[in-house]
Amino acid sequence: MHVPSVIEKKRDGKTLSDSEIRDFISGYTSGSIAEYQMSALAMAIYFQGMNAKETASLTHAMLESGEVFEYPKTAPRVVDKHSTGGIGDKVSLALAPLLACDDVWVPMISGRGLGITGGTLDKLESIPGFNVSVSRKDAVAQLEKIGVVMMGQTPEVCPADKRLYALRDVTATVPSQPLIVASIMSKKLAESLDALVLDVKYGSGAFMKEKSDAQSLASAMKRVGKAMGVETHTVLNPMEEPLGQTVGNALEVQEALETLRGGGPSDLRKIVISLAAKVTVKADAKKLGQWLDDGTAWAKFEQLVDAQGGDSSRLDRFASIHPAAVVKDIKATSSGEVAAVDADTIGRASLALGAGRSRADDEINFSVGFDQIVKTGTKVTSGDLIGRVHAAGDDAAKSALRQFRKAVQIV
Amino acid sequence: MHVPSVIEKKRDGKTLSDSEIRDFISGYTSGSIAEYQMSALAMAIYFQGMNAKETASLTHAMLESGEVFEYPKTAPRVVDKHSTGGIGDKVSLALAPLLACDDVWVPMISGRGLGITGGTLDKLESIPGFNVSVSRKDAVAQLEKIGVVMMGQTPEVCPADKRLYALRDVTATVPSQPLIVASIMSKKLAESLDALVLDVKYGSGAFMKEKSDAQSLASAMKRVGKAMGVETHTVLNPMEEPLGQTVGNALEVQEALETLRGGGPSDLRKIVISLAAKVTVKADAKKLGQWLDDGTAWAKFEQLVDAQGGDSSRLDRFASIHPAAVVKDIKATSSGEVAAVDADTIGRASLALGAGRSRADDEINFSVGFDQIVKTGTKVTSGDLIGRVHAAGDDAAKSALRQFRKAVQIV
Repeated sequence: MHVPSVIEKKRDGKTLSDSEIRDFISGYTSGSIAEYQMSALAMAIYFQGMNAKETASLTHAMLESGEVFEYPKTAPRVVDKHSTGGIGDKVSLALAPLLACDDVWVPMISGRGLGITGGTLDKLESIPGFNVSVSRKDAVAQLEKIGVVMMGQTPEVCPADKRLYALRDVTATVPSQPLIVASIMSKKLAESLDALVLDVKYGSGAFMKEKSDAQSLASAMKRVGKAMGVETHTVLNPMEEPLGQTVGNALEVQEALETLRGGGPSDLRKIVISLAAKVTVKADAKKLGQWLDDGTAWAKFEQLVDAQGGDSSRLDRFASIHPAAVVKDIKATSSGEVAAVDADTIGRASLALGAGRSRADDEINFSVGFDQIVKTGTKVTSGDLIGRVHAAGDDAAKSALRQFRKAVQIV
Repeated sequence: MHVPSVIEKKRDGKTLSDSEIRDFISGYTSGSIAEYQMSALAMAIYFQGMNAKETASLTHAMLESGEVFEYPKTAPRVVDKHSTGGIGDKVSLALAPLLACDDVWVPMISGRGLGITGGTLDKLESIPGFNVSVSRKDAVAQLEKIGVVMMGQTPEVCPADKRLYALRDVTATVPSQPLIVASIMSKKLAESLDALVLDVKYGSGAFMKEKSDAQSLASAMKRVGKAMGVETHTVLNPMEEPLGQTVGNALEVQEALETLRGGGPSDLRKIVISLAAKVTVKADAKKLGQWLDDGTAWAKFEQLVDAQGGDSSRLDRFASIHPAAVVKDIKATSSGEVAAVDADTIGRASLALGAGRSRADDEINFSVGFDQIVKTGTKVTSGDLIGRVHAAGDDAAKSALRQFRKAVQIV
């Protein structure tokens, strides 16, 4: 393969063949194709796009750059969920154990937070002892025992994606739909799934601001899933206000725990059930609701925590494990109806509090963030509580409070 | 400077500032900006282009990545010519010494051939002893003595261009007008010129097939030259048939020698004079023609050869220095008028004979090529000589002859 000719072909808007794409990615993985050729191709893809077949080939190529999960023949249906990420999105924490109450395996590989979006792994690590570094072998053993594992990406899964993602980050080639699709789908399909549900967010607090972009991404991911023989469902969900009433790692875990015990905010419970219902075998939405209410989902979560190094007996006192230095009430300064709680602004304020990372090597403060966040549509009177800020100090709390007020629009 | 943000800016079609462009190129030169970022920017420039101001900034940035020629205050007007290259283009060989008969200095830096286009340095090296590796210091000393030097690019001139050119070659980012303009102009302007004439070719045997593309490139180069304070002339010349009647290194030198002695084909003489007349101080076209006819230009060329390690006394016998193993006449097989002599086909045949390089490290055979190539518009009778092939062996000669026949159209 003459590498510059392949780049040229894409540059000129032509369609790359399956073997051209696979040879390029395997050459990149082995080092025979240089980073500067990969970045030039990525930029050409940014401008010229890729059709469904090319995107599937790219996904496949990234998948086969590493190792994939293998299950015994006796394994039940293997399912997972992926979300494109949003503010206060703690869905995975409740959904994975809930799904595992059904006759399915849930090998959920998640990521860490970067920018205003939190990461499931960070949230899980706010549970003392919880270990997200699980080998594929141990993961399968755990699935055989309890049907669910929540873990980070292992080094041997999609190494081409890891390198390409880092390269895209420094060459302004992140926002390219085929590259996004291949990155997401290759990692998920390395779990050797039978079914996948994709939660595609749009709006203020999402990566995609426009619903049409989210729709387009959802369709592209669905096509790739289908092309690779995986039952793929997509659900579009708005992300104008934070999901639930908390933003911040331990605060979000606390809310997920409440949801797993039949409580929690209604928007969170609803999305967890609706996404789960797409990939279950036996349970419908009603049954899933029952499992949240009757302790079945909670018991599964306890099994999960214990299996991965945590101590489920401490979950009752979870709220007291990460006390913030300063907790401040935020009160309405006018009366009316809450017209908007801008997710992006809340996300940025939370990042500034220390709940997230601006750079990949930043430390996270589990205890900070917001809770009791008022929901859009609520009628409030001046002086009513509209949220609470959890901060590491007074100055940070004050600044976060100011930001929070900007996010909440009362009319 | 946040490097990905600069790439993103160009990717999104925005205009880069002078300092962004200069910082990027100086970062690239120093190594703080990686090859994969440079290639991503190059691809973004391929798609989004650069305006005249950006192109001038890029040219300036590449220029200042290295060292430029410095002349004594007593130096006369410093001038040069650049051609975008074509088949049988031996103009520089005659033009540089001819110009130096006028009251100017000609510090001509040339390149080697790649692909179907020959290189002035290769042609010069077919003159025994001729040394093109001249330091800037020696070059200026030679200018002071004889007013002309013909040399290769020294390592300290435009190092950023050298690296970027090699990078573009392997990342499918060669055919981008601002990158082409900056590459050409930075190298030429490093000669610290007062005036430059650009010979921009279009047609079958040129890099640009369309006149409109050549026109656009010429305008862009002129704008950059002006922006950098250099009197810049552009001349568009068609390259449908080879220039003159020879293609191949020693064969072309022989034709240039004839031109320098007042002979040679009329199209070659005409273009040499017309280009030179653009940048002379005293001489007009008539005077330049006289210098070719009265031995003045020839004497200057003898000085040049002697100054750079050659032996001008051997130039009389130059035709016998590089005899080809096989020389075969090519005769017309029909009668009529020559409607076309396709330059691209002749160039490829010449490359196949060994006169050029497919790769930068290929060896060149000085002796091979074509001469006595018939000119378009000539009336021929079946059996008339329409060219001669000079080859390293019978098979190569046969194959070249077949190609040559395809190139010549008699109607």
